[in-house]
Amino acid sequence: MNEYVLTTAHKAKEASYTLARMNGAEKDRALSLVIEALREKREIILSENAADVALAKQNGLSAAMTDRLTLTAKRFDAMLATIDDVIRQHDPVGAYTEIKRRDDGLLIGKMRAPIGVVFVIYESRPTVTVDAFALSFKSGNAVILRGGSEAIKSNTAIMKAIKTGLKKAGVAEHAASMVEHTDRALIADFGKLTKHIDVIIARGGEALINYVQAESRVPVICHDKGICHVYIEKDAEKHEAIAIAVNAKVDRPGVCNAMEALLINKDFPHTKEMLDALAAKGVALRGCSRTKAIMPSVADATAEDWDTEYLDLILSVKMVDGIADAISHINRHGSHHTDAIVTRDIALAERFKGEIDSAVVMVNASTRLSDGGEFGLGGEIGISNQKLHVRGPMGLVDLTTLKYVVMGAGHIRG
Amino acid sequence: MNEYVLTTAHKAKEASYTLARMNGAEKDRALSLVIEALREKREIILSENAADVALAKQNGLSAAMTDRLTLTAKRFDAMLATIDDVIRQHDPVGAYTEIKRRDDGLLIGKMRAPIGVVFVIYESRPTVTVDAFALSFKSGNAVILRGGSEAIKSNTAIMKAIKTGLKKAGVAEHAASMVEHTDRALIADFGKLTKHIDVIIARGGEALINYVQAESRVPVICHDKGICHVYIEKDAEKHEAIAIAVNAKVDRPGVCNAMEALLINKDFPHTKEMLDALAAKGVALRGCSRTKAIMPSVADATAEDWDTEYLDLILSVKMVDGIADAISHINRHGSHHTDAIVTRDIALAERFKGEIDSAVVMVNASTRLSDGGEFGLGGEIGISNQKLHVRGPMGLVDLTTLKYVVMGAGHIRG
Repeated sequence: MNEYVLTTAHKAKEASYTLARMNGAEKDRALSLVIEALREKREIILSENAADVALAKQNGLSAAMTDRLTLTAKRFDAMLATIDDVIRQHDPVGAYTEIKRRDDGLLIGKMRAPIGVVFVIYESRPTVTVDAFALSFKSGNAVILRGGSEAIKSNTAIMKAIKTGLKKAGVAEHAASMVEHTDRALIADFGKLTKHIDVIIARGGEALINYVQAESRVPVICHDKGICHVYIEKDAEKHEAIAIAVNAKVDRPGVCNAMEALLINKDFPHTKEMLDALAAKGVALRGCSRTKAIMPSVADATAEDWDTEYLDLILSVKMVDGIADAISHINRHGSHHTDAIVTRDIALAERFKGEIDSAVVMVNASTRLSDGGEFGLGGEIGISNQKLHVRGPMGLVDLTTLKYVVMGAGHIRG
Repeated sequence: MNEYVLTTAHKAKEASYTLARMNGAEKDRALSLVIEALREKREIILSENAADVALAKQNGLSAAMTDRLTLTAKRFDAMLATIDDVIRQHDPVGAYTEIKRRDDGLLIGKMRAPIGVVFVIYESRPTVTVDAFALSFKSGNAVILRGGSEAIKSNTAIMKAIKTGLKKAGVAEHAASMVEHTDRALIADFGKLTKHIDVIIARGGEALINYVQAESRVPVICHDKGICHVYIEKDAEKHEAIAIAVNAKVDRPGVCNAMEALLINKDFPHTKEMLDALAAKGVALRGCSRTKAIMPSVADATAEDWDTEYLDLILSVKMVDGIADAISHINRHGSHHTDAIVTRDIALAERFKGEIDSAVVMVNASTRLSDGGEFGLGGEIGISNQKLHVRGPMGLVDLTTLKYVVMGAGHIRG
């Protein structure tokens, strides 16, 4: 075991015990001092970021990745505003819930508590450093951040400012740390430390996610890909259906909540018009044979298309016999992220909600609305693609856990 | 990948989709038919169990393990009564919760849904086969059971009866299955199938748990050991404190919620009397130097003692300076299972509840009360020792998950 890894994890665990003792007001004061420290270091952070960006360009990083890496003045301000948003949120720690009294007077309930030590893995965007820190800290967790190598100078400068703010507030030094060595093997080392690290949140490409899952004994919550579907029932209101399909596909095709596959009931009378509307927005359509019968200019969809996250203005289209067919397709080909139905029929809407096995199931709404901000979570640390603990956008409360609290008056067993 | 493993997991996943469609009444009817089928096969099951027990004795299985393996007539009846208990519980699937309406009319909430496919690993007790099946089934999950090799004949006979009952009810055949080959390597194969299996619940010894955690990419919820503490504050009421300490240690020393370490405030005036009461019950005491100063007959506790789960009439005893010392010791040496304080002081009780990082935190009650039955869960599939998803005793509702449901009227983004 790498000594640096063990020391970092151990110190984070010790710091987590001190964070569990802080109340909301104390944490908010510390967050305000972090904002101040970041503001003071603004020029240094921006110039370190410029150095990262220059190196990225030199290394031939894609334009999209370079854009995500870049900290503009506007993004810097938005980053500070995120901390303000977190300050405005109610501290979830310490609340009691589900308290019942037994006939013998014993009280049994639950109390919301921090998870402990959260290890966050992410790529490119240095603003995530601030988001992940602020949410973890407010929920009473120590956090270890592991950003991408391409952002290491920006992240190091940001973390230095965070630590300055925390120090001024008298918070334990290791409440937040940044892994300064970005070689991948260290992730595997951290992932073995089940006594020190309580959860790994992994945001990134499929290869990174697979690596983390394979190497970790610590529970992993990951962002996987988003193969989102919209299913149009035959009774769907025409304008609503077209507006939702177009919005889900074209509003922002490069993100995980964009629609990748459109399923249309074979008896929906406005299919041609819907496909025309999508094509008019520049969407390249790939369809099944029944789709092609309606619109011959559509390209052939191959078997692979139904399992593909395009992240682009490309869409697979399939005519289905009805809701059973649609549900079966979505559960087997989707990524259990976000799927929507457009219908006016209550029974069909209920069936879709019950049977679709996804983190977010929508009725008469665009998949693009699947987002922590849209859901009012006030900042998200990620979108969970697995089923335990939390599904979908993860906010402040999802960084806590419930422990049982039992209050007696000398109660014993037997 | 083993073909048998892949086929079993695939069929379970397909069956899980049909279970998600069943309502509570349909599931209860199927459970009643399973009771009937088990009753009909009673003689066969008992004779298969006798064969397991005979072989176990021949193989030199410990008396304790052989006892757990044995299905007496009384235990058989209790096993059927467990299914009745599950039938009486309300089906948690399909309930809506936390529904809020946005200013633009969009409804955003959560719906309780089955997890999907649950893989349960356990040892010895064939009654767990029925418990795990009934809870998984009622919560809408397909279940794959992997019992110990020593119980394979009993488990196979029980599963055959379960399948007979399910068939009569028209339930998908692979709603429940038993892994018939008990070599350990198959567990690793199942653990790789993240697309088919949604959670592994592992109950067993430390070696088995470590193996499952190391080999699985599927999330694992495990029963780890229970190093439970009781901390006696200086103001604790004498009779209450002694009764709790004695009950926590001697009521059933061989189980995970028994106390393994007793921490006593150095200013508690009745320490000698408490230790005498424990010794009188046959408890072998191992203490720190301050404990020995009070009761010289106490054996020396070594560093190892503070991290040991005795599962026996042995107890480590430590005098501490106060609550901070006690909390620090428990969080570092305990197993985050169940820990208790005895005090009359509200502020100290609140502090203990807030800062102890355990699944169950108790005030003025015996750790022995940490149990699904005592908590009114109506049957538990295990006790979770990790922090995500659920902590402590896991009941029916803990075998479900919450998905977001979003209901609009043509809502789009932007």
